[in-house]
Amino acid sequence: MTLGVVAKIKVKDGQQAAFEAVASKLAKAVQANEPGCLLYTLNKTDDPVTYVFMERYKDEDAVKAHRGSDHFRSLGKEMGAFMDGPPEILRLNELA
Amino acid sequence: MTLGVVAKIKVKDGQQAAFEAVASKLAKAVQANEPGCLLYTLNKTDDPVTYVFMERYKDEDAVKAHRGSDHFRSLGKEMGAFMDGPPEILRLNELA
Repeated sequence: MTLGVVAKIKVKDGQQAAFEAVASKLAKAVQANEPGCLLYTLNKTDDPVTYVFMERYKDEDAVKAHRGSDHFRSLGKEMGAFMDGPPEILRLNELA
Repeated sequence: MTLGVVAKIKVKDGQQAAFEAVASKLAKAVQANEPGCLLYTLNKTDDPVTYVFMERYKDEDAVKAHRGSDHFRSLGKEMGAFMDGPPEILRLNELA
């Protein structure tokens, strides 16, 4: 079953550019290194301090591979410095 | 610029099966008829009455084509009967 994730992230005001730089690096690393990841995009919203990662995985193993990857661990940590609290995560099971 | 939409929908409890039937029909109609739509999936969440459409469009014209399509208008209306209030829409601009 294809799995999805929507991760909504609040960024400290004034840290948007720094956050975007690291988050874009993460998106590119995922796109280049995770064959089980079908989609991984960084997105701006209508709110200047809110960003969304839109993610889609072939299966649970692909999600585990993502979470265990060096790039997610290191860049995820780096991103944390610019974030205003933990992300709001929606875990999705694709129906159609 | 690639645009994204995350539409979070609350369904009346007990109407999940009926909602899923119409919403799946809509997802399939979009996938079959909208070349500008890069992704359109119906997803379950961890909450039994909450569903999410994950959507991605080539550009603003593709979003307009979607909204103006017969399938979206007719099936969107049909879905409304099973929904518990309006959808919560996140409009996204893809950065990476």
